[in-house]
Amino acid sequence: MNKLEQRVDQACALLSELRFQNPLVYSLTNDVVIGYTANALLALGAAPAMIHDPTEARQFAAVANSLLINVGTLVKPQAEAMRVAVSSAIAAGKPWVLDPVAVGMLSLRSQVARELMVRCPAIIRGNASEILALGGLAETGRGVDSTAAVDEAQGAAGQLARETGAVVLVTGPVDYLFDPEGNRVASIANGHPMMTRVTGVGCAQGAIAAAFAGVAGGDYITAAFAAGLTMAVAGDIAIEKAQRPGSFQIALLDALDELDADLLRSRAKVSL
Amino acid sequence: MNKLEQRVDQACALLSELRFQNPLVYSLTNDVVIGYTANALLALGAAPAMIHDPTEARQFAAVANSLLINVGTLVKPQAEAMRVAVSSAIAAGKPWVLDPVAVGMLSLRSQVARELMVRCPAIIRGNASEILALGGLAETGRGVDSTAAVDEAQGAAGQLARETGAVVLVTGPVDYLFDPEGNRVASIANGHPMMTRVTGVGCAQGAIAAAFAGVAGGDYITAAFAAGLTMAVAGDIAIEKAQRPGSFQIALLDALDELDADLLRSRAKVSL
Amino acid sequence: MNKLEQRVDQACALLSELRFQNPLVYSLTNDVVIGYTANALLALGAAPAMIHDPTEARQFAAVANSLLINVGTLVKPQAEAMRVAVSSAIAAGKPWVLDPVAVGMLSLRSQVARELMVRCPAIIRGNASEILALGGLAETGRGVDSTAAVDEAQGAAGQLARETGAVVLVTGPVDYLFDPEGNRVASIANGHPMMTRVTGVGCAQGAIAAAFAGVAGGDYITAAFAAGLTMAVAGDIAIEKAQRPGSFQIALLDALDELDADLLRSRAKVSL
Repeated sequence: MNKLEQRVDQACALLSELRFQNPLVYSLTNDVVIGYTANALLALGAAPAMIHDPTEARQFAAVANSLLINVGTLVKPQAEAMRVAVSSAIAAGKPWVLDPVAVGMLSLRSQVARELMVRCPAIIRGNASEILALGGLAETGRGVDSTAAVDEAQGAAGQLARETGAVVLVTGPVDYLFDPEGNRVASIANGHPMMTRVTGVGCAQGAIAAAFAGVAGGDYITAAFAAGLTMAVAGDIAIEKAQRPGSFQIALLDALDELDADLLRSRAKVSL
Repeated sequence: MNKLEQRVDQACALLSELRFQNPLVYSLTNDVVIGYTANALLALGAAPAMIHDPTEARQFAAVANSLLINVGTLVKPQAEAMRVAVSSAIAAGKPWVLDPVAVGMLSLRSQVARELMVRCPAIIRGNASEILALGGLAETGRGVDSTAAVDEAQGAAGQLARETGAVVLVTGPVDYLFDPEGNRVASIANGHPMMTRVTGVGCAQGAIAAAFAGVAGGDYITAAFAAGLTMAVAGDIAIEKAQRPGSFQIALLDALDELDADLLRSRAKVSL
Repeated sequence: MNKLEQRVDQACALLSELRFQNPLVYSLTNDVVIGYTANALLALGAAPAMIHDPTEARQFAAVANSLLINVGTLVKPQAEAMRVAVSSAIAAGKPWVLDPVAVGMLSLRSQVARELMVRCPAIIRGNASEILALGGLAETGRGVDSTAAVDEAQGAAGQLARETGAVVLVTGPVDYLFDPEGNRVASIANGHPMMTRVTGVGCAQGAIAAAFAGVAGGDYITAAFAAGLTMAVAGDIAIEKAQRPGSFQIALLDALDELDADLLRSRAKVSL
C-alpha cells in the first residue's frame, strides 16, 4: 500500500470514528449557510451546534469537540464571540478550524481572520483567493468566488501553513493539502462544478473539517484530508443523481449520509 | 369512542380550523432553522412571520394569532425583542409557546427561559434534557440533543406544568403530553429517528404548536397534542418516501402539506 | 413583432447577458430567506454575496454589480449597513433594488423604506399591500401576505414610480410593471399559487431583479420585466414537476437553472 492509499484508509477510519463518536461541532458561521451547514454535519454523522452569545460561546467551546470559525457575514458582535470561543477552545485543548470566507478587500473579516490565524488553528480551509489574501500576498477575490487559479495559491498555502502551524486545505477544481511544514501532501481531484452552483458547499466543508478534527486525536492532516475527500466524493455521487442545483443541493446531503469506506476507496482520485 | 380517539378527532378538527384560518404565527426563533420553520408553517397551512426589531415586535405580537419563543441562538438584543413580544402578546390575549432549546449549562438562554416561563406560556415544548433543565432538576444536555431519557423527564414535566400553568410537550422517540395540572394526558409513538438527522424538526414543531394554539380558542391541550401528532405522523409518511436526510427534509415538508384527517386517524399511535 | 413580443425578446437577451457576466449581487436581505435567495441567484446564473458589517458594506457595494435592499427582518444595525451600502452603490453608479417587505404598520421598516425610496432605486418590487403602504395610501398588510387586491394597488404603483423615478413591479397572481413615468407597460400572468406556499419566492425575485439590473446597462424596465417573467415561468415549470411545497421549493431552483429563451418565449403570458 502506498502513502496515498494509506491516507484514504486513514480517512475511512476517521469517518467511522466520526460516526461512532457523533462529535459536537460548534459552528460560528455565516447567516447564509448556517442551516445547510447544520444539515451537512448531521448528514455526515456529526452533531452541529450554533451559539451566538459571547458568554455562552465561552461555555460551549469548552465542551464541544471542535470549533469552526467562518467569517462570511462577520459583524463586530460575532467577532467578539469568535475571540472568546477560540480562547475557550484553546484552553480546553479542543481543535478549531478557520474558514476565511472572502478575506481580501473587506476590512473587518480580514483583520479578524489575521488576528485569529496566529492562535493555532488546526486547519485553515479556503479557496485560492482567500488563501492568497490571508497570506497577505494578494488583495484579490470576488466575494466568495475564487478568481486566482488554485495553482497560484500553492506557494501562499505552504507559507501560511508554516507561519500558522495549521494544515491548509486549498479547495477548488482540485483540492490541495499542505502539512504544517508547508509541504503538499495530497491533491484531491474529485468533485464537480455544480458544487459551486449551491451556496454553502465550501462552508459546509469547513464545518466537516472541524468535525473530523474533533475526533482525530491530533492528526489534523488526516482530518483535513478526510474533509476534502468526503465532500468531493459526495459531489461525485450527487451529480449522478441530480443535474440541477436545487435537487443537487439535496442529493449532496443524501450523499454525505451514504458515504462509506467502499465508496471513498473506489472513487478517490488522489495524488501527491 | 374513547378519550384518545376523541383527542385524535379534536386534533383533526383543529387542523381543519388551522387551514381555514391560516393563522399568522410570529416566530422569534433561532437563525439555524428560521427558513425551515417558515416553510414548515406554510406547508401545514399557517402563515409565518419573523420580525426582530423590539418596537416592531411589540406592534406585531399584538396582531399575530400567536407567538413562538425559541432561544436556540439567543443574543441579548433578541432577548429584549422576546420580552417585548411576550408582553404584547399577553396584553392582546394571544397565546405564546416556549421552546427552551439547549437550556441547561448555557447561561443566557437559561436565565431568559426561566424569566419568561413564569409569564403564562400556553405550551412548553422541549426534549427531555431541556425539560429537566428548565425545571431546575438537571444541568445536563449536549447542545440540542437529548441525553436524558424521555422517561426520566416525566416527573420534571408534570412539575413544570403545574408551576407554569402551561401544557408541556416532551418530545423524543415517544412524545409525552402533560396538562397544566401535571397529569400525563397522552403519549404519541409515531415518528422516526431520521427526524433527528435534519436540523429544525423539533424547532418547527414548536412553531406548529404555536400555530395550533393560535386557532385553539384556549384549548392548548388539543393544540399541543395536534402539534405532536401532526409532526410525528408527517415523519412516518416522509420516511416512506425518502430514506436519507436531505430528501427526508423535503419529504417532511411535503407530508405536512399532505396530512389530513384520514392520515392522522389511520396512523396515530397514541396511548395514555 | 409587437411591443410585448419585443419585451420578451429583450428579457431573453438579458438572461443570456446575465449568464455571461455572472453579476455579483450584494443582497442585504432578511434572515428567513437569505440562503434561498443565494441559491436562487446561483441557480439563475448570478453570484450572490451577503455582507453585514457597515464598513464592509461600503467597500463591497462599490464593487458589486448591483445591490438588493430587503427590509423583511430589519433591525437598526442592518438599517445602518443599508444606508451605507445605498450611498456607496449610488456613488459607484451601481443600481439598487428596494423590496419593502411588510411595510405598513411596522414602524422601523416603514420609516427606513420611505427614507431610502427617495434615493433613486432602479426598481421597487412589492406585493399590493406593500406598494399601497409604501406609497402612503394604506396601512394595511398582514405580514408578508397581500390582503389588498393587486388591482387596487395599481394607482399607487404608478404614483410611486413617478415620485421615485423607479420601475415598480407589483407582484401577485398577475404581476404588473410600471415605468418611471407611472405607465403600466406590462402584465405577466404566469406563475402558480404554490409559489406563496414556499418562503422566499418573492424575496428571491427581488434579488433576481437586482441581478438583471446589474447587467441591464440602465434599462431597468427590461430588468424588472425579466425578473417578473423568469420567476413566474420558473413557477410554471416547477409545478409540473412538484405539487407539494417542499419539493416545489427545490423544483423552482431547478427551473431557474433550466430556463432559456425557448422556454420563456413559449410560455410567456404577457399583455399590457
